[in-house]
Amino acid sequence: MPLDIPEVVIDRLPVYYRLLARLQREGTTVISSQELGDHLGVTPAQIRKDLSYFGRFGKQGRGYSVERLIEELRLILGLDRSWRMVLVGVGQLGRAIASYRGFAPAGFELVAAYDAHPDTVRIEDGPVVRPIGQLPTDLRAEPVDIGIVAVPANEAQDVIDTLVAGGVQAILNYAPRTVQVPANVHVRRIDPVVALQSMTYHLSRERPRR
Amino acid sequence: MPLDIPEVVIDRLPVYYRLLARLQREGTTVISSQELGDHLGVTPAQIRKDLSYFGRFGKQGRGYSVERLIEELRLILGLDRSWRMVLVGVGQLGRAIASYRGFAPAGFELVAAYDAHPDTVRIEDGPVVRPIGQLPTDLRAEPVDIGIVAVPANEAQDVIDTLVAGGVQAILNYAPRTVQVPANVHVRRIDPVVALQSMTYHLSRERPRR
Repeated sequence: MPLDIPEVVIDRLPVYYRLLARLQREGTTVISSQELGDHLGVTPAQIRKDLSYFGRFGKQGRGYSVERLIEELRLILGLDRSWRMVLVGVGQLGRAIASYRGFAPAGFELVAAYDAHPDTVRIEDGPVVRPIGQLPTDLRAEPVDIGIVAVPANEAQDVIDTLVAGGVQAILNYAPRTVQVPANVHVRRIDPVVALQSMTYHLSRERPRR
Repeated sequence: MPLDIPEVVIDRLPVYYRLLARLQREGTTVISSQELGDHLGVTPAQIRKDLSYFGRFGKQGRGYSVERLIEELRLILGLDRSWRMVLVGVGQLGRAIASYRGFAPAGFELVAAYDAHPDTVRIEDGPVVRPIGQLPTDLRAEPVDIGIVAVPANEAQDVIDTLVAGGVQAILNYAPRTVQVPANVHVRRIDPVVALQSMTYHLSRERPRR
């Protein structure tokens, strides 16, 4: 499998996966790149190019097997295994993240949580909150795959440096700040403003300027 | 301006905007579709196609003016005005959203918040929490542009129906559930699992299966 796949192609794969899972529930068994493109607003050529990075899924003119594509995407995305996560920052946002019900069914397990003031916060039905100073030692003893960062913006870089030093290679960053990581570490930022801005496009068209 | 622009093209525009703003801060004044494509992992043809929906920004072989593209994207995305938002659901997640510092600088104003138990919750430095039963009346009296939904999954559809009945045409859905809306209403879902899944792709490649 080639290693030079553009990041944004990879970002699209979970979206393909969610769409295909829905189409399969609705009874679709075969789909063309044209139909996939229509669903996602991408050119059929882009769809074919995205999927071609991972091998030959479809036959010219015959479309993709939805079941086979789902299976391949599960393997490609590593959705056939479970992943250990730690949460850093157990404020309002951190507690909200810890209580999100969607992680476990998708194979993401929250194994520990850390805060600068562990005695003053707790997670309902979740791990005991540990002091943040314990994070480096814990990461050496119990390696984790993913760090979720929900600390204030000005603390995010320090926390991420600690996670990276402890071998964590994937960061889900909720702090409203762009952060620096080495090339072998992956970061995704949860940014509600980007989501809002794609909707204001429509609102601008549809309602008069006040 | 054409109205049949694919949703996913529109979803990419805020990402273009954020990238261009960063490039401008770093001193870039002109950029080619090839370079934009390299930054975003999209084919240059897809970039040109995306931007062609909105008119002629670039000249063949001369690249795009970063400043002009930013200006046009601001207008296209409606970032030159302010938007009124209400929040429904002031639990842990709702309070975390309300305290997000990124909304106001981007022109998104939280004008009201609602909860089923308004007496038991409050938003620090934010609007007083109103009873959810008051939402329909309030929407008639004070129209809003955007509804942020942070209620439990099983309440999301009802809340969204109420918002839509009150004229709200853009919904930011934090509830882990796909919801139904009329064709003229826009929904974006904040889903950390999709972000995680694009990172497990890399982790699967880089570390042994345990």
